[in-house]
Amino acid sequence: MSDNEDRKLAIICSKGTLDMAYPGLVLANAALMMGIEVEMFFTFWGMDIIHKEKQNSLKFVPVGNPSTGMPNFIAAIPGMTPMATKMMHKGLEKIDMPPVGEFLEMIHDAGGNIWACRMAMDMMNLKESDLAPEVDGVVGAMEFLEMAEGAQILFI
Amino acid sequence: MSDNEDRKLAIICSKGTLDMAYPGLVLANAALMMGIEVEMFFTFWGMDIIHKEKQNSLKFVPVGNPSTGMPNFIAAIPGMTPMATKMMHKGLEKIDMPPVGEFLEMIHDAGGNIWACRMAMDMMNLKESDLAPEVDGVVGAMEFLEMAEGAQILFI
Amino acid sequence: MSDNEDRKLAIICSKGTLDMAYPGLVLANAALMMGIEVEMFFTFWGMDIIHKEKQNSLKFVPVGNPSTGMPNFIAAIPGMTPMATKMMHKGLEKIDMPPVGEFLEMIHDAGGNIWACRMAMDMMNLKESDLAPEVDGVVGAMEFLEMAEGAQILFI
Repeated sequence: MSDNEDRKLAIICSKGTLDMAYPGLVLANAALMMGIEVEMFFTFWGMDIIHKEKQNSLKFVPVGNPSTGMPNFIAAIPGMTPMATKMMHKGLEKIDMPPVGEFLEMIHDAGGNIWACRMAMDMMNLKESDLAPEVDGVVGAMEFLEMAEGAQILFI
Repeated sequence: MSDNEDRKLAIICSKGTLDMAYPGLVLANAALMMGIEVEMFFTFWGMDIIHKEKQNSLKFVPVGNPSTGMPNFIAAIPGMTPMATKMMHKGLEKIDMPPVGEFLEMIHDAGGNIWACRMAMDMMNLKESDLAPEVDGVVGAMEFLEMAEGAQILFI
Repeated sequence: MSDNEDRKLAIICSKGTLDMAYPGLVLANAALMMGIEVEMFFTFWGMDIIHKEKQNSLKFVPVGNPSTGMPNFIAAIPGMTPMATKMMHKGLEKIDMPPVGEFLEMIHDAGGNIWACRMAMDMMNLKESDLAPEVDGVVGAMEFLEMAEGAQILFI
């Protein structure tokens, strides 16, 4: 494996669904294991991933997702989102994925930096006390871009 | 703040919803304020952001988005999308976000380059006269990749 | 055109809808024509793009997408997804886009590397025999990040 000392990965997480929370967490974790610096920036719906009351009850929504094979008129029926979420949790457990809150803690403990978007906080009336303890701070877009200098950036 | 003279940010905007229009605009604006070169490339549903008849009436759709806390069978009821869009506009005004068209104009005035995807134009039967005056030109994927050389690229 | 010998594009494809399959394929193809190395990594719903039974029947879902101009209570009616998919196929044919499977083959023949995500395979109970013959291998997140060293990375 090459030396990743100067490598940096900056991940913008803008979605709050269960299925779109994991790609960022998995990539952040893999990068940290390889010695790559990780900066995670949570904004818009991604705020749910760092919201301490919400992060462990993210949902997977089958409506609008043809990969489930479920027609929309069925997927929109009450009860289908909880059922699809339950099935996804089983799949995630099967491959030993930790729950979202625990995964974030692991990433933070491994040296990953966790940032909340100031604009999203203000728009959604969130207070710092709403956020998980792993959040290192609330920053603006310019501060994030400053941290992301020289990084490979992903927008999820 | 470091010298960002050689830094470039290329943003591909492929979504046409109100909530997914702002992340690209906010990042482009922040980058320009930091002296970073900005190339924005609009394609697929993102064409609505540069469509002069559509850019100021983008919608936020609560269906399929569990972050709103609204069940899908309610979110799909007629009138819910306009209501959710109105609420998001209030949130955006509260944090002093300009309307989409005005924001694009600010970005262009600050030196950001705005490109429309040729394939999307052809696929959607769009004419150059449908586009906002800030659009600098219609380019193909290869031309965009050429401009994005050395850039940090985001796909939104 | 500049020399792109050292340039690399790594594309993570996480969506399985028809409209979100094409941006990755178009960019990969354009990059290869410019002499840029291409690594495509398929994960989550993007697995459908490399699934040999599914890749040529991807769907475009109008629910939740206001760019279609179709209200959600209409878009969710049975028959609307097939109709919208058919219309998108017409648009794609008009601009000479090959079908998904053929496009992937072209990209592979032009030297693009196609990788399947090991975690997604395990989570979705997929076997290697389910995958299109163009897939070069099944890799984990760390292996992908290793290949993506020095690349511009897109998350689609």
